[in-house]
Amino acid sequence: MAEQRTELTDLGEFGLIERIEKQFLLQNSTSVKGIGDDAAMISIGDEYLLVTTDMLLEGIHFDLSYVPLQHLGYKAVAVNVSDIAAMNGKPEQITIGLGISNRFSLEAIDALYSGIKAACENYKVDLVGGDTTASSSGLVISITAIGRVTKDKVALRSSAKNNDIICVTGDLGAAYLGLQVLEREKQVFLTNPEMQPDLENYEYLVGRQLKPEARMDIIHELAEKNIIPTSMIDISDGLASELLHLSKSSGVGIKIFEENIPIDNLAYETAIEFKIDPITCALNGGEDYELLFTINPKDHEKLKHHSDIHFIGHIHSNAQQNVMVTKQQTMVPLKAQGWNHLSKL
Amino acid sequence: MAEQRTELTDLGEFGLIERIEKQFLLQNSTSVKGIGDDAAMISIGDEYLLVTTDMLLEGIHFDLSYVPLQHLGYKAVAVNVSDIAAMNGKPEQITIGLGISNRFSLEAIDALYSGIKAACENYKVDLVGGDTTASSSGLVISITAIGRVTKDKVALRSSAKNNDIICVTGDLGAAYLGLQVLEREKQVFLTNPEMQPDLENYEYLVGRQLKPEARMDIIHELAEKNIIPTSMIDISDGLASELLHLSKSSGVGIKIFEENIPIDNLAYETAIEFKIDPITCALNGGEDYELLFTINPKDHEKLKHHSDIHFIGHIHSNAQQNVMVTKQQTMVPLKAQGWNHLSKL
Repeated sequence: MAEQRTELTDLGEFGLIERIEKQFLLQNSTSVKGIGDDAAMISIGDEYLLVTTDMLLEGIHFDLSYVPLQHLGYKAVAVNVSDIAAMNGKPEQITIGLGISNRFSLEAIDALYSGIKAACENYKVDLVGGDTTASSSGLVISITAIGRVTKDKVALRSSAKNNDIICVTGDLGAAYLGLQVLEREKQVFLTNPEMQPDLENYEYLVGRQLKPEARMDIIHELAEKNIIPTSMIDISDGLASELLHLSKSSGVGIKIFEENIPIDNLAYETAIEFKIDPITCALNGGEDYELLFTINPKDHEKLKHHSDIHFIGHIHSNAQQNVMVTKQQTMVPLKAQGWNHLSKL
Repeated sequence: MAEQRTELTDLGEFGLIERIEKQFLLQNSTSVKGIGDDAAMISIGDEYLLVTTDMLLEGIHFDLSYVPLQHLGYKAVAVNVSDIAAMNGKPEQITIGLGISNRFSLEAIDALYSGIKAACENYKVDLVGGDTTASSSGLVISITAIGRVTKDKVALRSSAKNNDIICVTGDLGAAYLGLQVLEREKQVFLTNPEMQPDLENYEYLVGRQLKPEARMDIIHELAEKNIIPTSMIDISDGLASELLHLSKSSGVGIKIFEENIPIDNLAYETAIEFKIDPITCALNGGEDYELLFTINPKDHEKLKHHSDIHFIGHIHSNAQQNVMVTKQQTMVPLKAQGWNHLSKL
């Protein structure tokens, strides 16, 4: 009898994560929350320790032909800090696992670490350990971030309530369009190395792709205003995908309005230039690292004049109905077409 | 002016770690100990949270032509647990970053996770999170382990004192010889695929290489006997390398006796068969994952009949003199020739 072979792509990334989650039950009383949110929660007195791991692999998550090592180092830290932020926590420590091939000189590694250091300083986190090793193929960066949150202030994916207002920070889709610009200029360069890349007019988009910021500023502002989001997640895989995570985890329905989704002007114009619907970039682009959260309607007053928080819809009770109301006032179902790195296998 | 290029191999793994350590100063009061021990220490009330990261890369740390995925999963957890043990702590949680290529079927990933699960159950740790992604090249496993230790019971590399007795658990060199056997049989197979590998007579050695155990049993026994090691480190890079770490961190000298170094009979015979000095395997082989620790002489009485703890020498005050007394009663300097994965770059 032949051995069975099931392709991973049949299952997908989220399918695989669910499969693993089912197999591993928590045994220690300190393990409060395992797989299934932006970070794990470990009980330490009246706080939760938050732990999250993100791995970036060359050829999958970044292309060194246009990603400067310094930015890569910064981004690797920022995306982990973003996961701690999404739990309403503050990051304090990181560890780094680094696999490097002999293509890299000491100067290159210094550039990578200078980006890591800039992020550590900006987000006030300490590099406390790690593992540095040779890699026989590409560059591998695995970062684990550790943060803290007071127990009654943690924001989960699973606690959005009926009538809560859905908020997003910043603007969406720009990081995805930045990637499209970089890929286009790479192709131009490969075809004709004499050509200078045309990035100047797309600076904002390229910056959003290469050097995203975790929205710790929003976490601090919410704390100052005594607002605890009723649920929160960071937007790494695209707004639609994250909204569906909130719906599934909280057992509630989502209703958002296209006209309220924040899209930067340059992103809008560039989407048109690339012949992509701007709203598709915002819903499914990914890598924005903005925060998506819900608030109790009573907290709306405190945030309504905030220039960088946008109210895009509300929570309702029917978990089967996750919809967007278009500018033409038609309702379309929300579908996740976010990044699925396993599908690139 | 040409850009400067310094090769990483000029610096070496430990040189690179030192360079990084100097650049990153700790800013948060909760970050008690960063780079430079088996695990980082984070203050949580009257305990330290211990955090350690180890990365295993295909083609550098393992060869899937003879490493079963189930054993690899087990080992990836065990080597991290060993780092927590080396701080006299107990592991409680792990996160896993996993990069997998399309060579792997779901069944293969299930085999890997079944080994991870077996280790989690054996060491009583919870898998609480991680990141699963595609890899364009080989298999990548990065594990972060989190443990705890009461503050007054932590065992550092830096606190060995004059006259302390140097102890090692188990036996040394077998894992290295297991690797030599596996590599030899691989070559035999590549030359003549009809040949069956001859592993039966080397089962203990191969097992030490493929499925090492973290010595949590020793940590529990020391606690029962109210012994806090004055210093401790796990033996991943070879006894000599680890002894020199203790010497450097503690500012003390090492004196060990060749005749007291525990070497398994089969390991001894196999070393002779491979024309390697058995003591070289014990000193520089690596991957034993036994514990090397020092105790106050007053605790010797409590351990002297322990069948699996060996007293190999003692600490003296001259940090410049790290020596082994051979069976012929000559003194030879201890030299680290342990694993240096960067040298394989």
